Amino acid sequence: MAKDTKPRRPRAETPKGFRDYFGAEVTERNRMLEKIAEVYRLHGFDALETSGVETVEALGKFLPDVDRPNAGVFAWQEEAVPGGGHGDWLALRYDLTAPLARVAAQYRNDLPSPYRRYAMGPVWRNEKPGPGRFRQFYQCDADTVGAASVAADAEIIAMLADALEAAGIARGDYLVRVNNRKVLNGVLEAMGVTDAHQAAAVLRTIDKFDKVGEAGVRELLTTGRTDASGAEIEGVGLQPAQADPVIAFLTSRGETNDETLSNLRIAVGASAMGAEGADELAQIAATLDAMGMGADRVVIDPSVVRGLGYYTGPVFEAELTFEILDDKGRKRQFGSVAGGGRYDDLVERFTGQKVPATGVSIGVDRLLAALREKGLAGADMAGPVVVTVMDRDRMADYQSMAAELRAAGIRAEVYLGNPKNFGNQLKYADKRGAPVAVIQGADEAARGVVQVKDLVLGAKIAAQASVEEWKAQPAQVEVPRGDLVRAVSEILSR
Amino acid sequence: MAKDTKPRRPRAETPKGFRDYFGAEVTERNRMLEKIAEVYRLHGFDALETSGVETVEALGKFLPDVDRPNAGVFAWQEEAVPGGGHGDWLALRYDLTAPLARVAAQYRNDLPSPYRRYAMGPVWRNEKPGPGRFRQFYQCDADTVGAASVAADAEIIAMLADALEAAGIARGDYLVRVNNRKVLNGVLEAMGVTDAHQAAAVLRTIDKFDKVGEAGVRELLTTGRTDASGAEIEGVGLQPAQADPVIAFLTSRGETNDETLSNLRIAVGASAMGAEGADELAQIAATLDAMGMGADRVVIDPSVVRGLGYYTGPVFEAELTFEILDDKGRKRQFGSVAGGGRYDDLVERFTGQKVPATGVSIGVDRLLAALREKGLAGADMAGPVVVTVMDRDRMADYQSMAAELRAAGIRAEVYLGNPKNFGNQLKYADKRGAPVAVIQGADEAARGVVQVKDLVLGAKIAAQASVEEWKAQPAQVEVPRGDLVRAVSEILSR
Repeated sequence: MAKDTKPRRPRAETPKGFRDYFGAEVTERNRMLEKIAEVYRLHGFDALETSGVETVEALGKFLPDVDRPNAGVFAWQEEAVPGGGHGDWLALRYDLTAPLARVAAQYRNDLPSPYRRYAMGPVWRNEKPGPGRFRQFYQCDADTVGAASVAADAEIIAMLADALEAAGIARGDYLVRVNNRKVLNGVLEAMGVTDAHQAAAVLRTIDKFDKVGEAGVRELLTTGRTDASGAEIEGVGLQPAQADPVIAFLTSRGETNDETLSNLRIAVGASAMGAEGADELAQIAATLDAMGMGADRVVIDPSVVRGLGYYTGPVFEAELTFEILDDKGRKRQFGSVAGGGRYDDLVERFTGQKVPATGVSIGVDRLLAALREKGLAGADMAGPVVVTVMDRDRMADYQSMAAELRAAGIRAEVYLGNPKNFGNQLKYADKRGAPVAVIQGADEAARGVVQVKDLVLGAKIAAQASVEEWKAQPAQVEVPRGDLVRAVSEILSR
Repeated sequence: MAKDTKPRRPRAETPKGFRDYFGAEVTERNRMLEKIAEVYRLHGFDALETSGVETVEALGKFLPDVDRPNAGVFAWQEEAVPGGGHGDWLALRYDLTAPLARVAAQYRNDLPSPYRRYAMGPVWRNEKPGPGRFRQFYQCDADTVGAASVAADAEIIAMLADALEAAGIARGDYLVRVNNRKVLNGVLEAMGVTDAHQAAAVLRTIDKFDKVGEAGVRELLTTGRTDASGAEIEGVGLQPAQADPVIAFLTSRGETNDETLSNLRIAVGASAMGAEGADELAQIAATLDAMGMGADRVVIDPSVVRGLGYYTGPVFEAELTFEILDDKGRKRQFGSVAGGGRYDDLVERFTGQKVPATGVSIGVDRLLAALREKGLAGADMAGPVVVTVMDRDRMADYQSMAAELRAAGIRAEVYLGNPKNFGNQLKYADKRGAPVAVIQGADEAARGVVQVKDLVLGAKIAAQASVEEWKAQPAQVEVPRGDLVRAVSEILSR
């Protein structure tokens, strides 16, 4: 059949797991990131933008003998080099830390040390897409490389609080909570846990503190526990007394940082590592104090456990404390929007040298969602004033009106579709979210006037009415042509 | 040997043909793009951000039976779908127009029509890298999809002029020149050229007008030409009289747009297509006039030939007219930084329908280079004030000083490296481009004062001198601790 010989048209589809961002979605995110970047620059951090593509070797996720490296990243092999050797494997970056490690090693003789840098941009993950989970998304990181002092951690913690406020989160609506992996290590020493597997099991148990509470943690650390569904969960097998330091650690938060620190020093007992961790937290608290960071913004809180397994020293997390309604209509705190901590193996795999580093990552989509939740994003992203076209031969006049409006800083455009059907122009203005329409037919032009229509008031009726009905709306005023900008400004300021 | 058993460390290298951008390189570009985006939004254009990844099918560069699509793009195949079928081929976008075409087709029922959008972001080309040519670079596009009227072209042309000024190019330092492919088609008709191959040969010849001039074009269109190196270049084989309309076309620019248009109408003779093209240019000229765009900003200029082969209607190009020195120290005009025009096949391959579109693309790296050439980029990208550390136990004090400076809007940081060697701190401040260093040792602290050092004056000597010598520099002042911010502000305002 003739039908079969016709080549199939290509599908116009976003690839699976990717999405497109339109208008305010783009500008709101960019504005938020730029406000954060300003805070980072003010703190002496420099921008770094690496390309989206790295060698798989530099990313370091894969064994060199894997045939097709694809676990978690998008990767491909370069063409073979003429005259020998196969091409490099390249991949899209999966985060902003791996490229920082590469840069810190590659330019180690040229970069200032310590090197403070921020980076904002897309990263890619070759994962099964799910609802709200995309294979390209934004990250926003700031790190200090080469500073062993916890003053660097304190600085980043304070900077995070400033960044959240710059983005629009009010003081009182967020809290940065600080903990330290070294204190936990001290607790493990005080417990007499030296086996790495057992330590890991304790960490996993601590992670469940929020869910199962003190009694549950005690059960999990010792003989095990029966959960709500009746399932038996095996215990770590410690003696009941061994659980005491962990409980002391998790519940050590006092009314003040000083009180918390006293409790922590008790929890770590005689452990030197634990004392070092508590000293570091004390130093961080003192530095934050000197920087004017009150307890309404940052607190020492040993119940922060996220990231304790990954980081090697101070760990911190920023939570938004206001309530939202979840999917089921129940109130809950908005929760975590940023986190970070100290890690010391950033460039070691490249250079063999341990370089201390500490950093923070803000969850871009989470924070943006929070700003939207609070009505703080996109207030100024209204659609443009639409100058309608009543008379096709007078396009130059209409363009001149739009140009005048723009010269006054008002977003404006001329309708550029087929002007025949005036209803289409109004539907268009509606689709654009236009706050105002400007109309000038032949009779208005002859009388030297224009019609200025408030669409926020009249939108719904307008989409169905005829030109005549539409003109009769009370939200519409006729003004001298020379008063166009003034009349539009007036409506916009309503 | 033991040496051989040690695993090789990964190389810390940017992949071939890619590069990293540091500090001001990033912020200057972002600021320039944001200024341009503001102009685009003011004109009613909406942001669109598609992901870096598209299906190869949507990009449409490749035949479906090609085993490994890699001519010009970075592409890879998705994992096979469990239970049948091989995975889609995905690729990094090579420009911002192909994703626009996909979006315009995919969302055609939801987008306003006409759809004005701008897009800014990286694109990727799998090409052999060369000096100054990278495999990832930025594009900055604005297009109107679905507007047949040349009012849309006029609007984009005016917007381009506004965007260049917003970016920092002064009026008089640029010129947007406008031509029309339909006029050229009229000229071809007037010449009696109907064969497509011959028409293409005429287009190629026109492209050489800048180099070989009127006499050279006449030779190339007829019997051929011997170039400067003595090489024989074959002619198109037209009769001498047939060359007249082309020459008339190329040399038709007059003192005013009206004069140019009269000359063009003569060049196209009796061609209806040519007359239509001239009418369109006349309409564009009238619209630009109504928008207040003078001949110092935009002119009709038929000698613009770039893009005539690609576009189907109006074509335009923005040139920077100031002079720079080229690699060999010779003066030359900076040249083209943006171009665009009308094309009508944007979504046809997806939907089968021709949709008129017109757009502009600004050469991001070129324009940024021009701003740097004029000293207009990065004026405010000075390094931070560095608070040095004389006394490791008083980090909190130093952090407090930096916090005060930041609260006054001054970029400031505390030195976070090992403070033992003060010379290293000064070298660090130098590397950071710090304008000011703040110093407070134990004696200054006891006396309640700080030392504030102008590094712009003293940088060179400072890097070598001892603490004592360095303190003796005249650029250094001792002020009460309470006057820190005032003293630093004073130096910065010098």
